[in-house]
Amino acid sequence: MSQIEKILNFIVEIEKLKNVYRKTRPVGLDRYENSAEHSWHVCLCALMLKDYSNDDINIDRVIKMLLIHDLGEIDCGDTIVYAAESADLKENEAIGVKRILKMLPDQQFKEYLALWHEFEAGESADSKFAKAIDRVPPLLHNLHDEGHSWKKHNVTKEQVFSVNSRIGEGSEELWGVIKRKLEEAVSSGTLK
Amino acid sequence: MSQIEKILNFIVEIEKLKNVYRKTRPVGLDRYENSAEHSWHVCLCALMLKDYSNDDINIDRVIKMLLIHDLGEIDCGDTIVYAAESADLKENEAIGVKRILKMLPDQQFKEYLALWHEFEAGESADSKFAKAIDRVPPLLHNLHDEGHSWKKHNVTKEQVFSVNSRIGEGSEELWGVIKRKLEEAVSSGTLK
Repeated sequence: MSQIEKILNFIVEIEKLKNVYRKTRPVGLDRYENSAEHSWHVCLCALMLKDYSNDDINIDRVIKMLLIHDLGEIDCGDTIVYAAESADLKENEAIGVKRILKMLPDQQFKEYLALWHEFEAGESADSKFAKAIDRVPPLLHNLHDEGHSWKKHNVTKEQVFSVNSRIGEGSEELWGVIKRKLEEAVSSGTLK
Repeated sequence: MSQIEKILNFIVEIEKLKNVYRKTRPVGLDRYENSAEHSWHVCLCALMLKDYSNDDINIDRVIKMLLIHDLGEIDCGDTIVYAAESADLKENEAIGVKRILKMLPDQQFKEYLALWHEFEAGESADSKFAKAIDRVPPLLHNLHDEGHSWKKHNVTKEQVFSVNSRIGEGSEELWGVIKRKLEEAVSSGTLK
C-alpha cells in the first residue's frame, strides 16, 4: 500500500471520533457534543488565548496535540473529567491511540504517539496549556446551560473548583476570569 | 470588557458551526456531517498529507486557515461544491466571517480576516494546499457511501472529475491516488 493510501485509511478511521459523545451540550443546541467537533473547538480556543499562557509555548505544537488528544476515545469512549481516573482507563486509551496512529507511516506514528503521551503527562509547558484549554469549553457549556451536565452528574461546586483550578497551571489569567464566572454561578444557584 | 472575555464570547459564538450541516455523511454514520467536525477532520488530513504538497508550504498556517475556513457558514450555511459559486454568496460569507472575527481583539480580527481572504483567493501555496485538502473528505464519504451525496444531488462523473481535479493544484500525487479511486467508482457504477 502506498504511503498516501495508508494516510487516507487513517483519515477514514478517525471519522469514528464524530460518533463519540461527550457529557455537555454545545451552547444553544439540544444534543450532546461529539469529540471531533470538540477537538476543533479547543484548537481555536488555544489559538485565540495563546498569549495568556503562563509559560512560553509553541502554539503550533499545542494545536497538533489538541487535534489528536481525543483519538484514544474511538476505542474507549469519553469519560467525564470529574470521574476518578483509573489506571486501566488510561492504559486502554493509550492502547487505542496506538492502534489508530499505527495506521500511519512509521515516522508519523512515532512522532504523534510521542506528542499524545506528552499531552497526557501534562508536564511540558505546551501540554499544560493544552490541558488548561481542554477544560474551558465544557465549563462554558455548563455556564450557558444552567449547569445541565453538573446537575445531571451530581457534580458539586467543590469538585468544579478543585478539578478546574488546574486551568491556572496553564494560564493564571484565564483561570482568574473563569473562576469569577463560576463564583457568579454559585451566587445565582446554578452551581451548588 | 477584558480581552479574555471578548475571546470567550467568540468561543461561544463559534459553537454555532456545530449546527451547520453539510451534504455528505461521515463514513459509517447515518447522519450528515457538520462544519465544525469537518474542520477538525481537514486539519488532521492536511497535517498528515503535508509532505505531498506540490509547493513548499507552512503547515501551521495551513492548519490555521482550515480551523477558520468555514466560519462564514454560521451566517450563510454550507453550499455543495458542485453548485455555481455566485458573487452574492461569496460576499455574504465574507460579511459573515467578518462579523464573527470582529468579536476578537482588533489585532486578531485583522490577522485572521486576512488569513480567511487568503484561503478564499486560493492563490498562495498554503491556500492551494488547504483548498485541495478541503475536497478530500467529501470524496472519501461518497466513495464509502455508494455515492450517496452524488446521487442525491444528481452530480455527474464529469462534474466530479472537473471540480476535483483542482486537488492537483495543491498536490499532484494526492490527486493521482484520488483519481484512481474515482475511476474505480465509475467502473463499479457508483459514479455515473
